[in-house]
Amino acid sequence: MKKIVIALGGNAILQAGQKGTAQEQMANVQLAAEQIAQLVVAGHQVVLTHGNGPQVGNILLQNAAASPAVPAMPLDICGAETQGFIGYLLQQSLSNVLQKQGQSKQVVTVVTQVVVDANDPAFSAPTKPIGPFYSAEQAAEFMAQGMALREDKARGGWRRIVASPMPLRICEREAVVSLIDSGAIIIAAGGGGIPVVETAAGLRGVEAVIDKDLAGQRLANDIGADILLILTDVEAVALDWGLPTQRFLHDVSLAEANAYQAEGHFQAGSMGPKVAAACNFLAAGGEMAIITSLQAATQALAGKTGTRFTR
Amino acid sequence: MKKIVIALGGNAILQAGQKGTAQEQMANVQLAAEQIAQLVVAGHQVVLTHGNGPQVGNILLQNAAASPAVPAMPLDICGAETQGFIGYLLQQSLSNVLQKQGQSKQVVTVVTQVVVDANDPAFSAPTKPIGPFYSAEQAAEFMAQGMALREDKARGGWRRIVASPMPLRICEREAVVSLIDSGAIIIAAGGGGIPVVETAAGLRGVEAVIDKDLAGQRLANDIGADILLILTDVEAVALDWGLPTQRFLHDVSLAEANAYQAEGHFQAGSMGPKVAAACNFLAAGGEMAIITSLQAATQALAGKTGTRFTR
Repeated sequence: MKKIVIALGGNAILQAGQKGTAQEQMANVQLAAEQIAQLVVAGHQVVLTHGNGPQVGNILLQNAAASPAVPAMPLDICGAETQGFIGYLLQQSLSNVLQKQGQSKQVVTVVTQVVVDANDPAFSAPTKPIGPFYSAEQAAEFMAQGMALREDKARGGWRRIVASPMPLRICEREAVVSLIDSGAIIIAAGGGGIPVVETAAGLRGVEAVIDKDLAGQRLANDIGADILLILTDVEAVALDWGLPTQRFLHDVSLAEANAYQAEGHFQAGSMGPKVAAACNFLAAGGEMAIITSLQAATQALAGKTGTRFTR
Repeated sequence: MKKIVIALGGNAILQAGQKGTAQEQMANVQLAAEQIAQLVVAGHQVVLTHGNGPQVGNILLQNAAASPAVPAMPLDICGAETQGFIGYLLQQSLSNVLQKQGQSKQVVTVVTQVVVDANDPAFSAPTKPIGPFYSAEQAAEFMAQGMALREDKARGGWRRIVASPMPLRICEREAVVSLIDSGAIIIAAGGGGIPVVETAAGLRGVEAVIDKDLAGQRLANDIGADILLILTDVEAVALDWGLPTQRFLHDVSLAEANAYQAEGHFQAGSMGPKVAAACNFLAAGGEMAIITSLQAATQALAGKTGTRFTR
């Protein structure tokens, strides 16, 4: 029996090319729940975290469409909304699937704040595009108000960019630990968590987006998980991805992973943060990190596929 | 030391006449948190629930404004979004206020599903208006699709109406109890909870709205609370409300409350469900129910104001 934090990719909930109806998302979540249930039935303690890119994107579009009649909400509140939204779908589906298999378990979503450093260098160099596309005129107007935007020429418009600071601390850690100890399955730090900074008046939300794999790693270390299981589109991590020399990695030491990372094998917006999360998890005392696909999760845990990182 | 479920009125978060900006809502929540913190500092175990009327109304408007480009979400998902949204604001504010007073406590929101009966008579006679106003032509189109709408002549438009079924069971009860026992302050069943029905395939969300005071009462009984504290606009319940014979109630027995209710003293959409929640709480074994204002909560608990219901 292992304590496993599973970081579920956003595409497990809303696939590229789908319209994003509730029916589509519920069907995707159902498939994810069936895979995750296998780990629970096998006796593991499971904590789930998940991406929210497409969902927070849609909420930002909805906010923009109804504004100014309905005041638009800041990014921390929109992120909190997606934790309720996606958490609800996951907790309902997973609990239904387990119930069918005779496992009556509490599956609960905890709204989660994650502390970031107000002086994180990411705040002075925002990189993460979010929300609707704007014309050059609209963009100029927002930039005059102090907002950071960047042109996306391929998609023909300007988009807001926000900082992606490092997660330092899971605020609701103790509650998550109590719930795990009570036998519940927890969904926490959804969408990378709601980013907050520490101020003299206490915690305060900030306009930022935390990488969900790095937040999952922080959560995994903070609750003393044995395994960090990062689920994505591909069954294993590859070197020379997309080149004729491409080769998959299966068992990787922390030193090897760090070396590959330094050699630039992993893309910044894609496999890079996942491998970084795996390395951070081991460096902070974790036993094993695995990167694989949703479908291959059980096989990867058994050592038959996926990329397995150990110290 | 008492275990107290506090049902916070929606107006404690967004007041009538306000535009509904994040700043306004955060300021209101801050005031509520300062009052609630007094009960925590006095040594009580506190569980919070809250309304979501204005917030879910705004999310429905945002959904309508961006549709069909962004598919509109059903009411269960919109409700789940408000649990994340309002729960986040409450947990952050309350935890900040307590921290300032030297009380380091976990304050956590649990996304909560509430079971209703698929055969609840409310489903064949929906009464609760929600979401945007439509023209007569739009309304006719929706009604042809099987949706229930009603004309609101005073406000010049048609609105969707949904059922308000009785809450039967808090799905995440065990997790809430574990968290209370661990010393945390819980926010649960926000907006009356996400209404779900039991089907052969497990729980499934339904298009309905559960009264938040009745859901708060269900939660209070299910977790064995001593006191149900319903916070609203007025300091106490009155007989002959608004008439020259108006008089406030202070100490009321269950039998007296039932008799007043039967005499029609309390309005259906307003004080009626609050008094019903108070009576149900006592009938199911609760020690005391109190109806008062946010500002008078501490005084009412001390027996100095408010309306206090006992068996």
